Amino acid sequence: MAFLDQSYLLPDGVAREIYESIQGLPILDAHNHCDVKALSEDRKFENFWEAEAATDHYVWECLRKCGVDEALLTGKEASDKEKFLAFAANFELVAGNPTYEWIHLDLKRRLGIDLEINAENAEAIWSQCEAKFAQDDMSQQNLIKAMNVEAMCSTDDPADTLEYHQALQNSQLKNTVFPTFRPDKAMNIGKPEWNAYIDSLGKRWNTSIETIDQLFDVLGQAHAFFASLGCRASDHGVNVPYAQQFPKGIAEKVFAKARAGEKVDYTDRVIFMSYFLNEVAELDAQRGWVFQLHIGAVRDVRTSLYETLGPDVGGDLCDHNTDILTPILPLLNRFDNRLKVVLYNMNPIHNATLAQLTRVFGNKVSLGLAWWLNDSYIGMKRQLEYAASVDLLSNMAGMVSDSRKILSYGSRHEVFRRTLSNVLSGMVGLGQMSKATALKLARRLAYDRPKELFGF
Amino acid sequence: MAFLDQSYLLPDGVAREIYESIQGLPILDAHNHCDVKALSEDRKFENFWEAEAATDHYVWECLRKCGVDEALLTGKEASDKEKFLAFAANFELVAGNPTYEWIHLDLKRRLGIDLEINAENAEAIWSQCEAKFAQDDMSQQNLIKAMNVEAMCSTDDPADTLEYHQALQNSQLKNTVFPTFRPDKAMNIGKPEWNAYIDSLGKRWNTSIETIDQLFDVLGQAHAFFASLGCRASDHGVNVPYAQQFPKGIAEKVFAKARAGEKVDYTDRVIFMSYFLNEVAELDAQRGWVFQLHIGAVRDVRTSLYETLGPDVGGDLCDHNTDILTPILPLLNRFDNRLKVVLYNMNPIHNATLAQLTRVFGNKVSLGLAWWLNDSYIGMKRQLEYAASVDLLSNMAGMVSDSRKILSYGSRHEVFRRTLSNVLSGMVGLGQMSKATALKLARRLAYDRPKELFGF
Amino acid sequence: MAFLDQSYLLPDGVAREIYESIQGLPILDAHNHCDVKALSEDRKFENFWEAEAATDHYVWECLRKCGVDEALLTGKEASDKEKFLAFAANFELVAGNPTYEWIHLDLKRRLGIDLEINAENAEAIWSQCEAKFAQDDMSQQNLIKAMNVEAMCSTDDPADTLEYHQALQNSQLKNTVFPTFRPDKAMNIGKPEWNAYIDSLGKRWNTSIETIDQLFDVLGQAHAFFASLGCRASDHGVNVPYAQQFPKGIAEKVFAKARAGEKVDYTDRVIFMSYFLNEVAELDAQRGWVFQLHIGAVRDVRTSLYETLGPDVGGDLCDHNTDILTPILPLLNRFDNRLKVVLYNMNPIHNATLAQLTRVFGNKVSLGLAWWLNDSYIGMKRQLEYAASVDLLSNMAGMVSDSRKILSYGSRHEVFRRTLSNVLSGMVGLGQMSKATALKLARRLAYDRPKELFGF
Repeated sequence: MAFLDQSYLLPDGVAREIYESIQGLPILDAHNHCDVKALSEDRKFENFWEAEAATDHYVWECLRKCGVDEALLTGKEASDKEKFLAFAANFELVAGNPTYEWIHLDLKRRLGIDLEINAENAEAIWSQCEAKFAQDDMSQQNLIKAMNVEAMCSTDDPADTLEYHQALQNSQLKNTVFPTFRPDKAMNIGKPEWNAYIDSLGKRWNTSIETIDQLFDVLGQAHAFFASLGCRASDHGVNVPYAQQFPKGIAEKVFAKARAGEKVDYTDRVIFMSYFLNEVAELDAQRGWVFQLHIGAVRDVRTSLYETLGPDVGGDLCDHNTDILTPILPLLNRFDNRLKVVLYNMNPIHNATLAQLTRVFGNKVSLGLAWWLNDSYIGMKRQLEYAASVDLLSNMAGMVSDSRKILSYGSRHEVFRRTLSNVLSGMVGLGQMSKATALKLARRLAYDRPKELFGF
Repeated sequence: MAFLDQSYLLPDGVAREIYESIQGLPILDAHNHCDVKALSEDRKFENFWEAEAATDHYVWECLRKCGVDEALLTGKEASDKEKFLAFAANFELVAGNPTYEWIHLDLKRRLGIDLEINAENAEAIWSQCEAKFAQDDMSQQNLIKAMNVEAMCSTDDPADTLEYHQALQNSQLKNTVFPTFRPDKAMNIGKPEWNAYIDSLGKRWNTSIETIDQLFDVLGQAHAFFASLGCRASDHGVNVPYAQQFPKGIAEKVFAKARAGEKVDYTDRVIFMSYFLNEVAELDAQRGWVFQLHIGAVRDVRTSLYETLGPDVGGDLCDHNTDILTPILPLLNRFDNRLKVVLYNMNPIHNATLAQLTRVFGNKVSLGLAWWLNDSYIGMKRQLEYAASVDLLSNMAGMVSDSRKILSYGSRHEVFRRTLSNVLSGMVGLGQMSKATALKLARRLAYDRPKELFGF
Repeated sequence: MAFLDQSYLLPDGVAREIYESIQGLPILDAHNHCDVKALSEDRKFENFWEAEAATDHYVWECLRKCGVDEALLTGKEASDKEKFLAFAANFELVAGNPTYEWIHLDLKRRLGIDLEINAENAEAIWSQCEAKFAQDDMSQQNLIKAMNVEAMCSTDDPADTLEYHQALQNSQLKNTVFPTFRPDKAMNIGKPEWNAYIDSLGKRWNTSIETIDQLFDVLGQAHAFFASLGCRASDHGVNVPYAQQFPKGIAEKVFAKARAGEKVDYTDRVIFMSYFLNEVAELDAQRGWVFQLHIGAVRDVRTSLYETLGPDVGGDLCDHNTDILTPILPLLNRFDNRLKVVLYNMNPIHNATLAQLTRVFGNKVSLGLAWWLNDSYIGMKRQLEYAASVDLLSNMAGMVSDSRKILSYGSRHEVFRRTLSNVLSGMVGLGQMSKATALKLARRLAYDRPKELFGF
């Protein structure tokens, strides 16, 4: 077997047969970080670095581990080509990490370049990519088409005017790209930038937000506006998923204190966040949306990165001790049987707690695929095998790329579909289910289930 | 390889050879939730639903995840056949979950019906089962005989009069079914029903319980009575295993407070539970019993289920953060070398802590097999592989079915024995032990070790 | 495949090819518990028990689990032969545990005795070992040579005079054996023996230590002295890695209180330990040493062992709840990009947190190999597979034997190299990297990486 060939991640004939049955299905990608503006402009990438690395902190993290200087990663001085050459010279040291596979898959499947990335091949890859990216079929919208993306959801702020989503309705991607309602900035009452954000959110909706009722009036308007553009889910990034039941009066006081510029403490934040998540869940329940929680990210722990580059640059991780069960139970019970919920975890240690939680709460509460640093072959395989044994595979939410790179959607879903085929063929091989049943489950997780859950 | 055929869970010839060497050994099942009354009456099941699903919340949980209405699971109105048809129509969605395998195994091995459960086969399975269950060899006692159960332990309250255990001594199951001493209701001092339970426990023993000494007098009598019927173990279901050393005086005050109907707080419960477990451990040590702790179940978290159906209906799960080490060390040290202990955990995350704990405390403290949502093929395989590397396989306690369904004992032990053969063949295949040694270990864990530990 | 033959842990041809490419590389063993005095004296072992079990609490723990009496493990009365016979009679019960494999490997590879250890073979093994150990090529230094150890680091106290390290500079092991700076006794301010230790540390350096400045003066002198003998790393054994930033004044007060014989509480210990680790990290950073943290050992939990035999006899384990992230972040941020750090964890549950932490902190912070009860085939395999998917394999620190037994270094490194070959061949087999890349990574982890990191 050779690197990334047709048998990639498929150890036997049954695995290959399962994969062949699902590889052609359209992609449904219910959560990613698409640059919708760039997509709506349908512009092309100029080179490999811009397409693959300029916006991807996974690449920066891996190259930092190889000792590549920050100037050649996020620096403003170095050219894309200089950065690419440093990348290529070091990339073999990244082998074993999924970033190594994803990028080679992009190169092979999307760009048709079958070379291993290293110093020797660097110039050839650079120039072949430049030529390839200049082709018309490599515009961003054409890439989405070529990857057979039937539906995808970006991640958007309630203050967003969504004009690029509107523009896409007049493009070849009509009815393909939907926003997701992600009001984290409004929820994160402890952050220094919160007050300014609330101001700007008010302005966006031509009002001022002085009370908690006004906040949820505005969020309700935004929710309706998002719905008009096909939004079908909210999404919330949390470390501990505080979602307890507090009376509005208590949350109101915290809100007033924060708006007055007073310091809010940890308890205040727990109160406000809990109230906030419950209110958004109520909106979602009324509209039949999916309420997604991304649980367990501890952000910006590396001060040197945060101070020079800001958030989302590789300073995030997760902790094993994160409390999940106690804080989230009140919300799950309050909305029991009337809200679709998907729970994603970042630390594989929490696979058991989450799979058992989604098992207990029945049909409407689903386990999301292994998230972030967990969505490698090994991370997904271990999660799928375990989740199948506790919860039901058939009730899981399906794959989301979570990617910031358009070029990567196809590769991410390919790795998932191959991993799923691998896991199911393992079960067939051990006599745990028939091949016919495995084929049905494969199709369900790859396509039918996200279609049903998100209403694509 | 086909679904559940002879090679089920056995990937190679060595695995099959190991399994063949142990598949005929009698079953020793030191922990289950047998309905002893029904068994003593030796009655037959009427149909598939009654035998397989009417008492099994695992089935309900799986079908809830498929969207089956509660009326067709636990409802009083729907007939068994209606429930069965809903079950059959949805069961393929359960594939990957051990419940799918266990029930198909029961069907195939016990009932001789080699059909996959689905809508198409539903009527055939229903009628074939009805016919089969009507046969004399399908009475409950005959099933136990057919499954080659040499010894089994039910789970019983100290207030129980055990008349059905006595009745079984005059049946073909003489010296086969033993009670287990499970005084959880007396331990759970925080629960609303505790005082009424203590009253009834007193009445059962023709006395009243007003002091902590009286409580342990009664429990001591019950302990002796259980012993007279072959009991050889106590069992305790705990979330956090509080077993610290508190002076009797302090526990006495908590007890008095609770008996006076006053509210006890968390600390009170920790004190009483700690004292309680130590006292029962003392009784067990004196009588040479096995002290079993089932650790880490968080119960009744789904309010809608608990309020309509009560406990043990599918509202239970486990948490990763559960504290185990600090609370349990005092008891293990106090009874070091003079009490047989078996520790079971529900969350695979705790496999390491528990295996290291049983390693440290020597010969008398044993690791129990992966418990509850953890006793699938994948759960047991991962535990056995890891526990072997830290503790000794040869000191583990062996398999228990933990089942509420008689029909399932054979299937549960079959899955364990196949998984064990799979794990050992893996070690032989990698050259970690000789096949001769693996064959000895297989026999030991499947039969000799529980026989020795529980004194069957 | 037969027990421990050439294919041991190598499931296919690619695994064997990878292993063959690295099996001959010299051993670099950056952390062990070598008895340097014994090594400098170059004396021979007398018998199997002395060489394999007399100093190895792993063996005692395993045999305790088999029910062997303490008198035949650590007793002063029984002869080595009597102990060996008890060991041999029970050792097959240890199969599945890595101790079983390590000791058989020593027997086979070092002593050329190809017998399974059991009652039947006991006399033969005993006498063949006696004869073998009497040979000149079995002296301790010759064993180190025979195992192709190029560099190894023992574990040493700052009060140590290191005369045996000096002596080794005039032996055939010149430039082979280096000390490691392990000041745990000075750090553990809460322990009853701390004050006496500080006295003796002062005496060793011909001074008295009455202030915290004097303590770090002395430690600074010791650090320089260790450097003169080739030391290149400090090492710290901690449960929770407290390394927060406290002002010197606060730590000074705790120090003064403890020196005055007053009781220090938990907070005091956190303050002092945090200050201490930061100060040593500063010394290490200035000298370009590697700062190693062994995280998560809870020591001496079994009272009966500790009271009769003291520490390091088998009473240690780890906990899943151990807090790691919050306490260690301040140190990692303070020394970001200017201190080489290696983090080792004992509980596999912490693999994810640690791999993500080392990913975030870039090139100078490396993940150590699975430690202590985690460094079995299964423990290392699971860690390597997961760590590769989060961090980079190429940045890991490489194998350390952590062994107290000279005879075992070769076997420990053999098991690692085979496991590494197994993991990499798995990735090649699934098409995740080319064989050429896997061969380079194998060499890097087995030799080049520790050489570069520790500057051997």
